[in-house]
Amino acid sequence: MAAAEIGVIGLGVMGANLALNIADNGYHVAVFNRTAARTEEFAAAAGSLGDRVTACATLEDFVAAIRPPRPVIIMVKAGEPVDQQIAALKPLLEANDIIIDAGNANFRDTMRRFTDLDGSGLTFIGMGVSGGEEGARHGPSIMVGGAEEAWNRVEPVLTAISAKYQGEPCAAWLGENGAGHFVKTIHNGIEYADMQMIAEVYGVMRDHLSMDAETIAAVFSAWSTGPLDSYLIDITADVLMVHDAATGRPIVDVIVDAAGQKGTGRWSVIESQMMGVPATAIEAAVAARSLSAMRAERAKAHKRFGVPGQQNRREGQLVVDDLEKALLAGKVAAYAQGFAVMAAASREFGWNLPMATIARIWRAGCIIRSRFLDEIATAFTETPDVENLVLSPAFSSMLVETDPYLRRIVAEAALNGLPVPALAGALGYFDTYRRERGTANLIQAQRDFFGAHGFERLDADGEHHGPWGGQG
Amino acid sequence: MAAAEIGVIGLGVMGANLALNIADNGYHVAVFNRTAARTEEFAAAAGSLGDRVTACATLEDFVAAIRPPRPVIIMVKAGEPVDQQIAALKPLLEANDIIIDAGNANFRDTMRRFTDLDGSGLTFIGMGVSGGEEGARHGPSIMVGGAEEAWNRVEPVLTAISAKYQGEPCAAWLGENGAGHFVKTIHNGIEYADMQMIAEVYGVMRDHLSMDAETIAAVFSAWSTGPLDSYLIDITADVLMVHDAATGRPIVDVIVDAAGQKGTGRWSVIESQMMGVPATAIEAAVAARSLSAMRAERAKAHKRFGVPGQQNRREGQLVVDDLEKALLAGKVAAYAQGFAVMAAASREFGWNLPMATIARIWRAGCIIRSRFLDEIATAFTETPDVENLVLSPAFSSMLVETDPYLRRIVAEAALNGLPVPALAGALGYFDTYRRERGTANLIQAQRDFFGAHGFERLDADGEHHGPWGGQG
Repeated sequence: MAAAEIGVIGLGVMGANLALNIADNGYHVAVFNRTAARTEEFAAAAGSLGDRVTACATLEDFVAAIRPPRPVIIMVKAGEPVDQQIAALKPLLEANDIIIDAGNANFRDTMRRFTDLDGSGLTFIGMGVSGGEEGARHGPSIMVGGAEEAWNRVEPVLTAISAKYQGEPCAAWLGENGAGHFVKTIHNGIEYADMQMIAEVYGVMRDHLSMDAETIAAVFSAWSTGPLDSYLIDITADVLMVHDAATGRPIVDVIVDAAGQKGTGRWSVIESQMMGVPATAIEAAVAARSLSAMRAERAKAHKRFGVPGQQNRREGQLVVDDLEKALLAGKVAAYAQGFAVMAAASREFGWNLPMATIARIWRAGCIIRSRFLDEIATAFTETPDVENLVLSPAFSSMLVETDPYLRRIVAEAALNGLPVPALAGALGYFDTYRRERGTANLIQAQRDFFGAHGFERLDADGEHHGPWGGQG
Repeated sequence: MAAAEIGVIGLGVMGANLALNIADNGYHVAVFNRTAARTEEFAAAAGSLGDRVTACATLEDFVAAIRPPRPVIIMVKAGEPVDQQIAALKPLLEANDIIIDAGNANFRDTMRRFTDLDGSGLTFIGMGVSGGEEGARHGPSIMVGGAEEAWNRVEPVLTAISAKYQGEPCAAWLGENGAGHFVKTIHNGIEYADMQMIAEVYGVMRDHLSMDAETIAAVFSAWSTGPLDSYLIDITADVLMVHDAATGRPIVDVIVDAAGQKGTGRWSVIESQMMGVPATAIEAAVAARSLSAMRAERAKAHKRFGVPGQQNRREGQLVVDDLEKALLAGKVAAYAQGFAVMAAASREFGWNLPMATIARIWRAGCIIRSRFLDEIATAFTETPDVENLVLSPAFSSMLVETDPYLRRIVAEAALNGLPVPALAGALGYFDTYRRERGTANLIQAQRDFFGAHGFERLDADGEHHGPWGGQG
């Protein structure tokens, strides 16, 4: 009876595709969904894979259908539903069964769930899955957090269903506890920044160079054979080329400019703030999405302020070439910041996160997959202890080459009223980071003046106070 | 015996000065400090005010010295020590006594404390106090959160000790529960942004125009009679003029460029993120402080990258005049963002925060006090329902006038490698906000392509999906 080797709970797009992916790889999978109709629908559509799918109408049947010790993947909406599902499963499972939360959990919830299940005899895994629908179906990037022993038990199936980059599986154990979901959160934060910077250069082409969607598509298409080669650049070219059936216009031109967000970008920023690690490009991306949603206010502001007239407009092709290099420089910042946040979290939570491995399993399957991540994997392999990605030899060189273009684009955008907040955030990060002598000396003087906070001196140890003569 | 009308616990600089301020205003105050030596030291130094000070060696004596119902101000380090102090006080106090936490509490702790004390018969107030040492002694800005009835009972003493702006006290009840500490947090967030932007223009003068500290001081001094007139500009001029006794050099030139931070700036950003309200100038300021603390890394990065050579350097005076207007534009953004975050929190927590009153009680006493805040108070009085400060007539005009200078400075800084992240964050905010048609349409197309997230159309209601033809 108990023929299934693994179970999947939750048959939304992601869960359904993950289950099909598992069956496709030769594993027998039991599935269950809260609404039975969805389960039947899924079973009916499973086609030739149906032989390896056991569709269960009740949770009891579902558990009974899996061979112990049971790996059970939960793929439901993050938050409360996960806790409810765990609570419902708990009395039905046996010692050594493994509950795997594969949703977009906040890693702090994941850590709480590890604690809650402690002593229950059950094993828990918090697993980040990236790749959207398509990835879930044909190979996502899989980021696992939990006990290494638990990983060893599910490694065969997870590596089988994961994406492969030149044959290497994009699934790995990253550390204890919430490590997997934390890394997935930062993946998404980087994804926000990457997408925002692409949108910014799109805006420069559309609004500054008056290029239409198809012309812009051709630019992205050309870039996808260069150093920017990545899934996101590819699909940017793709979506820009698609026309709307109803109007015949490029589809992007009929889409409302208000972006949704589901929390992971925001969490990236909140966690980076809590650890005091600047993630300016990610922050700018999250802020830009929030501002995009304020359409009524923006319409009012537009009416009030308009946009600045064009100044110093250069030749189209010149700017386009600069944009490619500027985008690459911005991308370096976004990824450097994301990896710096992970390094800080690794210290904070004692995870010992393997940076090169993280870059490696992001090379395929996930939304930010790219050649660039292979270069990051190499950089962290060659210089594992580098303080910041930009200090690695390869990325230093990349930055030296592209930085002049980033500053030129940011300057031109500033003069012309083109919003490039993430690119500007990247530039501000570099320019603050590369200054040996910054301007915080003035801030320290002010803080000591009004709050007696003290300061350090360049020429003497210890804490000092200024001779403010009773004014302070 | 019970002669004191109010008590102060915690005789650090802030608590001691607050107690002296209370005595100075004719109130009899009981004081207590965990280490008795500090209490004695305080009493000995109280001078002529000693008659109105009862220094208590034990908490029991302290409580006995105050006339019921007792207002007890706690001014100790935020966090755990506040909880310990409340726990120690609780068994000694009587019904209707008021515990007032005047420290820099996280408003979420304050809300928890309200809940904890619920039903205890004791009254709680979370009170933000700004103004540093000097403000505490001679008149701070006081932001009160709690029951209005509790405020009515302590209003006389709090308005007496508060700063006055043209005779009006800078103390007010702002709302229930954590409202006072939340507003204080945002005050500090704005303060971070204000200080950072000042440091940025200082950097442009020092590193781009090669001006020395005294010459820069003269510029700030001149600005303090114009629209930037504020305490922070005044003290910037002051500290830049002070020389170090040991070396004879301007003191700012011997101070290490690594800024400290105590949490409130970070909390501002975290709360704004949680509510999805962009606070880009505040975020940039917090990031800049974090980067300033990474001195060793910055030294390495400097060695690796240097700073870009100077391009398009204009005449000194020209740039200085632009800087004043750019700083004013940046300031508009920082304050607009801070007030937008408070408006969101007001909705989220049901506080009904009085924006004009907040601006009014910040006009004197606190660190960001300025003429500018009087203008904000007027704007919110005239247009209380304005969606964003920049849409009020007065600030619209200010922005229209100063915006070209902000973009010129950001552009010039970008080309010359001068870090101006907060000013650039301000500009990115405006330029995103003033665009009726942004670029998030591309982001929505991408999100629908890879995640089937759906999008809205400009020409039809409802949720739509793109014709991605199975690629998505």
